[in-house]
Amino acid sequence: MDNLIYNHNDTICAISTAPGVGGIAVARISGAQAFEITGKIWVGKNLEEVTSHSAHLGKVLDSEGEELDEAVATVFRAPASFTGENVVELSVHGSRWIQAQLIQSLIAAGCRMALPGEFTRRAFASGRLDLAQAEAVADMIASSSKASHRIAMSQMRGSFSKKIDAVRDELVQLASLLELELDFSEEDVEFASRERLLELSDTLSVRLNKMAQSFRTGEAIKEGVPIAIIGKTNAGKSSLLNALVAEDRAIVSDIHGTTRDIVEDTAVIGDFLVRFQDTAGIRDTEDPIENIGIERSRNAAQNARLVLYVLDSEAGVTPQDAKDELESIDRERLIIVANKMDAVDNFDSESWAKLFRDVEIIHCSALIGSGLDELRMAISKRLEAETANDDIIVTNARHAAALAKASNSLRDFARSIRENVPTDLAAQDLRQAIYSLSVITGSISTPEILQNIFKKFCIGK
Amino acid sequence: MDNLIYNHNDTICAISTAPGVGGIAVARISGAQAFEITGKIWVGKNLEEVTSHSAHLGKVLDSEGEELDEAVATVFRAPASFTGENVVELSVHGSRWIQAQLIQSLIAAGCRMALPGEFTRRAFASGRLDLAQAEAVADMIASSSKASHRIAMSQMRGSFSKKIDAVRDELVQLASLLELELDFSEEDVEFASRERLLELSDTLSVRLNKMAQSFRTGEAIKEGVPIAIIGKTNAGKSSLLNALVAEDRAIVSDIHGTTRDIVEDTAVIGDFLVRFQDTAGIRDTEDPIENIGIERSRNAAQNARLVLYVLDSEAGVTPQDAKDELESIDRERLIIVANKMDAVDNFDSESWAKLFRDVEIIHCSALIGSGLDELRMAISKRLEAETANDDIIVTNARHAAALAKASNSLRDFARSIRENVPTDLAAQDLRQAIYSLSVITGSISTPEILQNIFKKFCIGK
Repeated sequence: MDNLIYNHNDTICAISTAPGVGGIAVARISGAQAFEITGKIWVGKNLEEVTSHSAHLGKVLDSEGEELDEAVATVFRAPASFTGENVVELSVHGSRWIQAQLIQSLIAAGCRMALPGEFTRRAFASGRLDLAQAEAVADMIASSSKASHRIAMSQMRGSFSKKIDAVRDELVQLASLLELELDFSEEDVEFASRERLLELSDTLSVRLNKMAQSFRTGEAIKEGVPIAIIGKTNAGKSSLLNALVAEDRAIVSDIHGTTRDIVEDTAVIGDFLVRFQDTAGIRDTEDPIENIGIERSRNAAQNARLVLYVLDSEAGVTPQDAKDELESIDRERLIIVANKMDAVDNFDSESWAKLFRDVEIIHCSALIGSGLDELRMAISKRLEAETANDDIIVTNARHAAALAKASNSLRDFARSIRENVPTDLAAQDLRQAIYSLSVITGSISTPEILQNIFKKFCIGK
Repeated sequence: MDNLIYNHNDTICAISTAPGVGGIAVARISGAQAFEITGKIWVGKNLEEVTSHSAHLGKVLDSEGEELDEAVATVFRAPASFTGENVVELSVHGSRWIQAQLIQSLIAAGCRMALPGEFTRRAFASGRLDLAQAEAVADMIASSSKASHRIAMSQMRGSFSKKIDAVRDELVQLASLLELELDFSEEDVEFASRERLLELSDTLSVRLNKMAQSFRTGEAIKEGVPIAIIGKTNAGKSSLLNALVAEDRAIVSDIHGTTRDIVEDTAVIGDFLVRFQDTAGIRDTEDPIENIGIERSRNAAQNARLVLYVLDSEAGVTPQDAKDELESIDRERLIIVANKMDAVDNFDSESWAKLFRDVEIIHCSALIGSGLDELRMAISKRLEAETANDDIIVTNARHAAALAKASNSLRDFARSIRENVPTDLAAQDLRQAIYSLSVITGSISTPEILQNIFKKFCIGK
């Protein structure tokens, strides 16, 4: 199926800029016949003869041969282009009409409409990008914070692939030693020291597993780091959320128990996209629906990367009350927010500090906006510390699954060696680990894998 | 005010592609220092040294000097660029994050954010485009049908300006002859024959007035040609509208009198954008609100370029009934649509044709979709015929007003000559006519005029 619709020999075209009306729009044409086909709808210098990386003012024609627009054609000759093929980029006025007519005209001239991600897929096919780099292109385009952008760019530029390839190379070397042993099996020689084998496979298994685990952080950075806002009813959790995201998404009211379900809102704090989760206030209630809400807030707090405990400084909540409520929350994930400080003369900081020795306590007022910058700073610092330790952060579920699989195969391999399973049987796990890593960078790939990856791209990339 | 914020010496920047996420986005930088400023955030070939119209792969930095993205920089040296100034176009990955950071980085490096239309305004300032051509750029970008696109492109390419300038040149020649007379006034000579003067100013006044009048057509083409759909209640007007625009915008129901106000929907028919106006069904009713609707449909029918009279073929409406209802509609604007033909065995075409001799009668069924192509064809042909006669169609209210003003001044001039008003007084009207035409192409302009024109542009163009 995939191969039926996916023909590498076609010359493809698409609008590569964002959909809609703009000052300019850019159509990209890629393939062996890019110059020839574009030439059919182009009035200007002969694109087959101009030098690579040159831009030319001319006119484009519609499918009836009438002048459609003035355009600038920029020519990239294979292999020095994004796709590795001949590429023309046509920059035209960005009306919907012109964009639609231009694509229609290019198709009439012999192009095929590009499939989602097909330009990037061709960059992969021509060896300009490996698969992990190609996937990072989509992440680059989707990224909405500095942290997610940084990870995507590092991956696009190949640092993730390099680490994967390094591990793979070590495993390939191991495997070849084992193969050699098998060739000489009747002589009962050991080319690979069993101790060294075990040490290496244990180390790599742990390393790969750690990379797989980093997906939890990576996913949070990519989709937004979940931060739960918890506290008693009427402590001002919704007001705090609003103040932090400066939008009136959560319903704020003076009635206790207003927020019954989890209201989410995203904001960029420092380098991170965060998803604040405003939860139902915790109190004893008979209301069954409210109780479901309270149950959910407990779950949200358990699953969040950080928990903001909001307290009403005016209402005289004691540290002991809070301590009971916060029993199940790890101290490292906790920040206490003493809200409504505008209405309080003296706050008993000392007794709070005593009971919550290692927990940061931020004084603020969501109402008048004081202390919010300190809170943002505290959140940002905490998230930076959390992500600083990982040298590689995996943001792609496919990579995480492959890494976990490779780690498990290596563990199985080590166990077989320890249990003196015959070398040829044990070697199968090693080969499986190599295979899993190869799939990440695409040195081994199938049409199904590729189709799954690129169908998530936008058209024009 | 205008001059405070509008400094031609600044180097300006903006994202020129449509807002939102795309495969790529293009930032445009224009001004004397475009290469120098872009160079501060660029890692790659020295943009000040490369040749014009060349594209270069490199990297762009964010405002903190960190790598932001890979980019292709295309360099256009003054005066061979859109603005006539030095221009760099930076093509980057089209994430919102990257676009925002890139602009921030360019501003930190010394650019100013471009005002709406400022690139085009600079193209005007540098003489690359006259004012009417510059205005056509915005029309090009907004155009959504072949007809509006064609007019905008013709205007952008200068054919409208050429006609205006030709008239203006004739008037200037006349004026200089009159000035010569004034110089020799004590000798009582006539350099300009009064008859020739009158003939020319009458002809030109009529021609300019005709151009001004073409704005009615031009506006309809640009904004959508209004076509009213009228008829008795339950004739299937809303169903017909839906079938024509293939969208469920009008509420369709079997209850008589469902549509009480005018429901508008646009569609492209042939080369034209049309605005179909579904009107309240005409019937005798006591319902005051429905009566307001009926009154409005009468008005819509009066103001529309075409009127589709929909009749329920199944209900046995007689031609005489229809004739009474359609009394106030000019036959040239009328198309009769015999709807629900799927439910009718024989339709008395003959008696309809007899009473509506020159009116096209289309048989169709909105329900099963028959006859709709014929109807579209009939509409398209009618609109083509309507617009074919005008050699110039004015689409811009400012131009129409200036043309009308010039026409009136010429008429006043002619009257003064006829009435033997002293030449120096009459010449003032002639100068006023010349001034009005000069304002169209911008050979005379004021900051206020320019600001009014360009503030309607999008940023980045």
